[in-house]
This record gives sequence, C-alpha cells and structure tokens, in this order.
Amino acid sequence: MHNLQIPHATTISALRARIRSWRADGLSVGFVPTMGALHQGHLALVQLAKAQCDRVVASIYVNPAQFAPGEDFEAYPRSVIEDSQKLTEARCDLVYLPTTEVIYPEGFATTISMTGPAAGLESAARPHFFNGVATVVAKLLNQVRPDVAVFGEKDYQQLLVIRQLARDLDLGVDIIAGETVRERDGLALSSRNAYLSADDRQRAGRLNQILKQCAAALADGQSIAQARQTAFEACLAGFDSVDYVEVRCATSLAELADGRLDTPARVLAAVRLGKTRLIDNCAATPS
Amino acid sequence: MHNLQIPHATTISALRARIRSWRADGLSVGFVPTMGALHQGHLALVQLAKAQCDRVVASIYVNPAQFAPGEDFEAYPRSVIEDSQKLTEARCDLVYLPTTEVIYPEGFATTISMTGPAAGLESAARPHFFNGVATVVAKLLNQVRPDVAVFGEKDYQQLLVIRQLARDLDLGVDIIAGETVRERDGLALSSRNAYLSADDRQRAGRLNQILKQCAAALADGQSIAQARQTAFEACLAGFDSVDYVEVRCATSLAELADGRLDTPARVLAAVRLGKTRLIDNCAATPS
Repeated sequence: MHNLQIPHATTISALRARIRSWRADGLSVGFVPTMGALHQGHLALVQLAKAQCDRVVASIYVNPAQFAPGEDFEAYPRSVIEDSQKLTEARCDLVYLPTTEVIYPEGFATTISMTGPAAGLESAARPHFFNGVATVVAKLLNQVRPDVAVFGEKDYQQLLVIRQLARDLDLGVDIIAGETVRERDGLALSSRNAYLSADDRQRAGRLNQILKQCAAALADGQSIAQARQTAFEACLAGFDSVDYVEVRCATSLAELADGRLDTPARVLAAVRLGKTRLIDNCAATPS
Repeated sequence: MHNLQIPHATTISALRARIRSWRADGLSVGFVPTMGALHQGHLALVQLAKAQCDRVVASIYVNPAQFAPGEDFEAYPRSVIEDSQKLTEARCDLVYLPTTEVIYPEGFATTISMTGPAAGLESAARPHFFNGVATVVAKLLNQVRPDVAVFGEKDYQQLLVIRQLARDLDLGVDIIAGETVRERDGLALSSRNAYLSADDRQRAGRLNQILKQCAAALADGQSIAQARQTAFEACLAGFDSVDYVEVRCATSLAELADGRLDTPARVLAAVRLGKTRLIDNCAATPS
C-alpha cells in the first residue's frame, strides 16, 4: 500500500505478527501513537520509548473521531513518507499505518467516554474530543499491547485522560510522559503551528511566558485566584481570544480551593490566534 | 480473603501471575465470566472453554453497573463457596473473585457505550444495561487476556454485544457461544428462576414453547409479522406482561423487512411473571 523502504504494517495482523516475533525473543515493546505531521516533539517521544524498551512501534493515524464538524480534519497536515523517514532516523522499529477501514470497520458501534480528568478544559470547547481520543487509543493499545506507551506533556489533559483510561480498562501498559519540546521563544512544538501567519508566530511564544510567570507567582505564594487572573488578563492582551486559563491539581486536574498553592499543580491554557488554537501548560509547585 | 480450598485469585496481580505462568508453559487460556449463583448452564460454558483451551479461568462478580436502581442487585443470589466448588468439579483451573475495589477503584471514570446489536430489545427496558456489561467485560477480558471467552446464548443480545465489543476494541479474543441449557419443560436455566413462585414456575416453561412455535412457523414460510404477532399474543396470554417479542437478524440483531424469512434469524422475547423477568430466544432458519 505504501511504497516505504522502512518496516511498516498497515493491518492488525501484520502488526501483531511483527510484535509476536519480538515477544518470542523476549523483547519489550514501547509505543508512540501520533497523527503524523511529525516534529522534534514526537521524535523525542520515540527516543524516550526507545530508552525504555527494546523495540518501538509508532503509529500514524489522523483519527476522524476526535475532530468535530468544522474543525481541521481535512486540512490536518499529512506527510506519511517524510514522517516514516523521521521515525526510522529516531530508531523507531516499526511504523504502523492503519487505514480507517482497519480502525473503524463497517458497523463499528463502540464509544468510550470519560469523566474525571476529561471534564472541563479542552472538553469545554471540544465536547467529544476525549471520547474520540479514548476510543482510538484503547484500540491502538489493544492492537499493539505494548509494555510502555509515551504521550507528550504538551497535551497534558490528554496524558492524564489516557492514564485514567489505561487504569480503568486494565490495559496493562505503563503510560509515560514526554516533556514538551519548545522553540527558542518558548512556543511548544505543534503540528498546528504550521497554520500560524508570520505575524501570529511572533506573538505565539508569549503563551509559554505567561504560564511560566503564573507558575512563578504561585511558587512565590500568590493566591491561586490572583495568579490565574493575572495570567488570564495577559492572555486576553496577547491573543485574539482565550478559551481558558486554569490552575488545577497536577495528578487529577481537579479544581483547587483558592489560597496559597499547597499541592503540585498544573497551569493550563488555550488561546486563539486567528483561526489557530494554541494550547500549553506548565508545572507549578508550592514553595 | 476467601477460605477456599481451590485455586483462586482476588487481585489483578495474582490473576496475571497465574496466567503468566501458564503462558510461559505455552498453554492456551479460556475464560468464563459469571455473576455466580451458578447452575448447569454456567458449568456447560466452563466445559466448552475447557474443550477449547488448556486452562480455564472463571470469574464471579456481581457487577453493580449493570443493575438499575430498583433492580435486584442487592437480592441477586450469592453463593461463592458452592459456586467455586462447582467450578472446580467442572475442571475450571482458577476462580477469579475480584472485589468492587478491584473492578471500580476510587476515581473510576470510564464508560463504554454500544450501539448496533445493543440497540433496542433489552436496552428498551434496561437503558444502561449494556454499558454496564460492556465496561465490566472489557475490563475482565483485559485482565485475563484469554484466547477464548465463552458466553451463553441464553443472553443472546449480550453475546452479540460482547462479540461487537471484542471486535471494535481489538480485544484479541475469540468470543464463543455456549448453547442454552434447559429444564425438561424448556425453561432456560437462569439464576433468576429461583425468584419464581411454584405456580409461576409451572407457567414459565411456556416461553420456550412459544418461541419454538414461532421459529417453526417462520421455517414453514409464515410471514415474519404474522409469526411474531402470534407469538406476541401467546406471550400476552401466558404471562403477566410482555416486554418484547421480536424476530431479528441472527448476526446483527437488525430488524428484518416483513415477508418470508430469507436469512438466519433469532426470535427473542422478554416477559414478566410476577416480579420476575424471563428472557429467552431461539434460532429461526429459512426453509
């Protein structure tokens, strides 16, 4: 199907045959699911998986179920040949390229929905997003059955949702977090950064600075409500609109009572620049 | 926790340790999930699993998520000691007895919902039933990771829902159907038959006769609507109320266009006798 010079599988049976042969040799398996349009952030996840496991599978699949009508499913950048080459250079052992017929065969009838860490934040703007993510990730994890799967902290809420999913459905996999890779000005690498105009690209780095300033204020003992409000106003001033700026529990994403921070937290934000939606987050720890 | 003389596990780690040792010996594993209150129908499922696999795990867990408020969760019969003895006599190799803390730990946040074969029939009277079933069965299948899991045809819609679930979530297990075991008068064995008064027990056998007569009429070329109507009226006459009597596609449970039967079908019914709800079904094949 794909004229690739690197090891790849497009069907579940081919994928499982390859993994079975590794398992027969006693090798451990790491997994990095992606939607392609790979950048250095994805490749760092592959390298992290490779540091923990003997063999690494990366998947490339743009999952229609996590895009709402009017979102950028059609426009989402696709570059499977270049992506596969990058993965191989990052020492990925197998590229899994399922088609939509493989992921959602005729008559597909199952939806996984999540509460807990999936509530609020991204779900407010994208109510079906985590259902789509959870369903496809459960499938991919069951197809690969890795020892370890790596997800980026860039999508911090997604990371916690997947961790909850793996625990709740007993998927038997360790979910490992990969640190966000950033441009020099702090902008988190994202496939959607390609949508930014040159002017908006100049403004985009501000988001990370605002979040870091918020975390610093929290560490200095500023109240959660005050630190959040300052960050929110800075986002309003710096971007075209603000979906949210929140300070949440770092492990559950539960809301925190106001006052001095007394537990590890995460500052999370989503803002818009033109038609592009930027999300980012950073750790905030009590002093 | 349980003072049982037979091999059992109450935690996922103990369960997986036992199964890992079997896998290391190259043995295949079959699985029979139950809610206990075991009768000969359950034991036939264990025997079927044992005929297909080297080792058999049976679970006993009364799943609160598949009971609605006002249903019989509290009253559901529990007899774990006797059940475990019966399972061992049926050559079950391991009895898995998870607690609710194991199945739904604090913070559990995931629901699996199904359309397709889950639509209508049982779902009309019990709208959350198959969500509860699908979620717990996905968990149990992921905990055990068997080669084969056996479900009884008595709960025919559940069997097809589980088959769809296993396919949709790529659970990597063959779902095998076990034939319904019946009393002499045709009544399908069910843990809930214990609720029947002596008088209602006399009437209960009629359900299977009505379904068999419906299947015979369909095989004789009677129209689906006519055969169904006759069965419906017989159920109305024979029981206190009727939830449904339906003729559906045997593989998808899709509704069938009226006319002569031209595809394998299933006649399914749910009726009530006093406070007891009886369900049953039988195959109908074109002549």
